[in-house]
Amino acid sequence: MLFTLGGTKSNMDPALINFKVLYVLTQLCGLTMIVLVGTWIGQHFGGLGGSSNPKLEFNWHPLFMTIGFIYLYGNSILVYRGFRTTRKKTLKLTHAGIHMAAFVLTVIALKTVFDSHNLNSPPIPNLYSLHSWLGLSAVIIFSLQYVAGFVAFLAPGIRENYKIAMMPLHIYFGLFGFVLAIASAVMGLTEKAIFAITSPPYSTLPPAGILANVIGVLYVVFGALVVYLATEPSYRRKPIPEDTALLSSGSANE
Amino acid sequence: MLFTLGGTKSNMDPALINFKVLYVLTQLCGLTMIVLVGTWIGQHFGGLGGSSNPKLEFNWHPLFMTIGFIYLYGNSILVYRGFRTTRKKTLKLTHAGIHMAAFVLTVIALKTVFDSHNLNSPPIPNLYSLHSWLGLSAVIIFSLQYVAGFVAFLAPGIRENYKIAMMPLHIYFGLFGFVLAIASAVMGLTEKAIFAITSPPYSTLPPAGILANVIGVLYVVFGALVVYLATEPSYRRKPIPEDTALLSSGSANE
Repeated sequence: MLFTLGGTKSNMDPALINFKVLYVLTQLCGLTMIVLVGTWIGQHFGGLGGSSNPKLEFNWHPLFMTIGFIYLYGNSILVYRGFRTTRKKTLKLTHAGIHMAAFVLTVIALKTVFDSHNLNSPPIPNLYSLHSWLGLSAVIIFSLQYVAGFVAFLAPGIRENYKIAMMPLHIYFGLFGFVLAIASAVMGLTEKAIFAITSPPYSTLPPAGILANVIGVLYVVFGALVVYLATEPSYRRKPIPEDTALLSSGSANE
Repeated sequence: MLFTLGGTKSNMDPALINFKVLYVLTQLCGLTMIVLVGTWIGQHFGGLGGSSNPKLEFNWHPLFMTIGFIYLYGNSILVYRGFRTTRKKTLKLTHAGIHMAAFVLTVIALKTVFDSHNLNSPPIPNLYSLHSWLGLSAVIIFSLQYVAGFVAFLAPGIRENYKIAMMPLHIYFGLFGFVLAIASAVMGLTEKAIFAITSPPYSTLPPAGILANVIGVLYVVFGALVVYLATEPSYRRKPIPEDTALLSSGSANE
């Protein structure tokens, strides 16, 4: 047994067992969050609709933001540590791919909220609330990060020391955009609860109000777990032999 | 010049110059935030008042939360890196002292919001909003952290390896509580703006609404700077000779 090499359960790094437990918890939290947002808009706000019904078209906004700009964004961040035996190049493409899916859902979620304002009679003003200022900032940070990340880490011909210099900024602004998305989401929940839970009012905590608060708590728990899993040093992915092309800078480049 | 030892401007670590610039920016951002909150409640909501006027008593809530639960909380986090040539023991006591001041202001801020609800006619329900759920969670996390931090790092007789094991959790939950305080603050601004900016309404972005949004943006920028300054590895405080009693564990113990 003395010479057994890593990988089997009996001699697995205890930090990795913790990681796996928390990773599963993160997924359960994230999926519950999505199901509850679906329940919230379905049970209390009339479900989904097209541009002929601006109030129902609005409901795509919280749903697609939750799936795209919170759940997929968080999972894309975790891909390096969650699939640590996969080749680095594959992980980068997966990271870019999930982020692209998150971006598409986010753009649709923005389109539906603008529609629901502009097509309402009378129209509702756009971009006046702090929710919209911070939420749009988060989308812009996310988009700039995508372009910068693509140029720095996926496009060919970038010098290795430039990649190494960019990585801490990519990680910092990636996590900042993610946390800002969650802060914007809890503000959005607050707005919707105040505006739309009126009889009985939000202040009496009817089922729609309790559900809004529970969804907000789940956003925060999901966010806290993702940031923890992505930053705890003992959960760091170590380079694998298949990473050959990047092996020399693997640790700085995770 | 070859033998000059650190400390003079000409040969200061470039990371430390960056740190100082960002640290000054953080203070300016924090102080501006406090001045603007004072302006907001003074110019648009009638200023401060006692329990005989619940609406004015409420205004202590955003003011003292901003000073205590955001500005002092953030500065207390930064004390180790901001005053890096001060002895570790002094820094710990300063950290505990600023946190205590933050806690006192936070408790007063909680008292004034409960008063402003209970003394209103008719009374306004307490603790129904997501803002209150997340904000109170942040206060509870902060308080538990204070007790745990006191026991682990200031009380005598705690074993060194226990301190080293506790430190990453203390840092994680300290930053988590701080970010949650900021998320709660932007939700609180949203609530106040919707409820109290009514003629003309918040949706037309009158001066009170623009000010609310600018304060929210400053909260986020302040929070982002504090977290960056507190986590960037190159800004880490290094043990100084006067830390003798703790020198052996200084680097893990920052």
